[in-house]
Amino acid sequence: MEKLFVIKIGGNVIDDANKLSSFLKDFSKIPDKRILVHGGGKIATSIGNKLGIVSKYIDGRRITDDETIDLVTMVYGGLVNKKIVAKLQSFNCNAIGITGADANLIPAKKREVTEIDYGWAGDIESDKINPGTWKLFLENDLTPVVAPLTHDTKGKILNTNADTIASSIAVRLSDDFEVRLIFCFEKNGVLSDVNDENSVIANINPEKFASLKKTNKLFAGMLPKIDNSFDAINKGVKEVIIGNSSQISSLINGSGGTKLSMHE
Amino acid sequence: MEKLFVIKIGGNVIDDANKLSSFLKDFSKIPDKRILVHGGGKIATSIGNKLGIVSKYIDGRRITDDETIDLVTMVYGGLVNKKIVAKLQSFNCNAIGITGADANLIPAKKREVTEIDYGWAGDIESDKINPGTWKLFLENDLTPVVAPLTHDTKGKILNTNADTIASSIAVRLSDDFEVRLIFCFEKNGVLSDVNDENSVIANINPEKFASLKKTNKLFAGMLPKIDNSFDAINKGVKEVIIGNSSQISSLINGSGGTKLSMHE
Repeated sequence: MEKLFVIKIGGNVIDDANKLSSFLKDFSKIPDKRILVHGGGKIATSIGNKLGIVSKYIDGRRITDDETIDLVTMVYGGLVNKKIVAKLQSFNCNAIGITGADANLIPAKKREVTEIDYGWAGDIESDKINPGTWKLFLENDLTPVVAPLTHDTKGKILNTNADTIASSIAVRLSDDFEVRLIFCFEKNGVLSDVNDENSVIANINPEKFASLKKTNKLFAGMLPKIDNSFDAINKGVKEVIIGNSSQISSLINGSGGTKLSMHE
Repeated sequence: MEKLFVIKIGGNVIDDANKLSSFLKDFSKIPDKRILVHGGGKIATSIGNKLGIVSKYIDGRRITDDETIDLVTMVYGGLVNKKIVAKLQSFNCNAIGITGADANLIPAKKREVTEIDYGWAGDIESDKINPGTWKLFLENDLTPVVAPLTHDTKGKILNTNADTIASSIAVRLSDDFEVRLIFCFEKNGVLSDVNDENSVIANINPEKFASLKKTNKLFAGMLPKIDNSFDAINKGVKEVIIGNSSQISSLINGSGGTKLSMHE
């Protein structure tokens, strides 16, 4: 099967113009098929503040009210997405910027109201994603650049976590491609000592993960990310790689970051 | 050759949620291939005002400075474009929202600085548009929804007139499709009496246009639109239809609006 990289970058890259440009230059040189999923960054908050849109949180989770969904649709789907696309085009990468509404690429469901009403937040069911148009793009050398937005298929855009989007696409396309899912963040990988960037654990398989958890070696914030990664691997993704966006070339060629897989 | 409609809507539709929804419902029912090009609307100005971005004009033409290109990229490329796409998806029209940067669909040139520096304004050369990806989308039943933005292929988004985008695409695709270009505006068509909506001139060919001009029957503001329309027809577009967005079904089937063509 042909290789496909699904690569997610977060706010720390998006908020830093130099870091972003340098990442996009490296990204454009990847010889294999690839999809870029980007998060939002702080710019939505700063533009929201100027517009008088105050972010609301319940239990630390952002509530997407009417004003906020318009804000993130503008900022993530317009400003951030199109700047990335134009930059990639300048590096001869034939990028196409999309949200999950475009070509119905990521249908989702508005999160059900329980004790908390999250507003216009979308949850994805990976198997509802239709691989057809994704394959059409990839086979025609188009590189999708995905904003963290989906739609409910009834006319509303939904705010959706970029990590979830990346892993859902990766899982869904793993019947057709040998998929590697790369999560870029501000560290060089999963660290055995959170204060030491040189303590990257090169490989983690489920057994190793269990033993690392037992000895409390891992930073607590990493645990759900690793759990979700193994979930994606169980559903067909070949490897998940966690590392620094500034080292994307070595994350791609397997010489950097932390590699999660079923095997050592 | 297969039929293709390139349809342009302007601010008067975009600024009115009911009008827009009703137009999109009608649009989604068009049985032939179609491309929708949308203008900006007043929302960019009102959001710009809130953000403290003051629109600058020289000789009545908007100047696109750094702040303004970010503003229109957000509003046209994000908010307006994705709302239209999500709505069309709800009507089972497989819309895909794009700017000219996406998939390099509309490369453009930054307008040269002469006496006036228009800033990040883009001029299109129709023959630089590569029909390949347009055809790929249309042949796969994707309906492009085009924001009035292009790019300079060097990493910058450019603000570009929606009428010009619509006619450039229409011209470029006329080798492959029988193209009809529809300009929607607030009137029922080209009127022989600007105060009488019932005075629509059903057909205009170049001879008739010449005689209408001679007798000063036409509203002056229509003249450049009609000139540009005949230019598109000379370059391969079969017909240009000018009419009201609320009558899109009759504009499509030839029973409404003003039809411009080489023949009576």
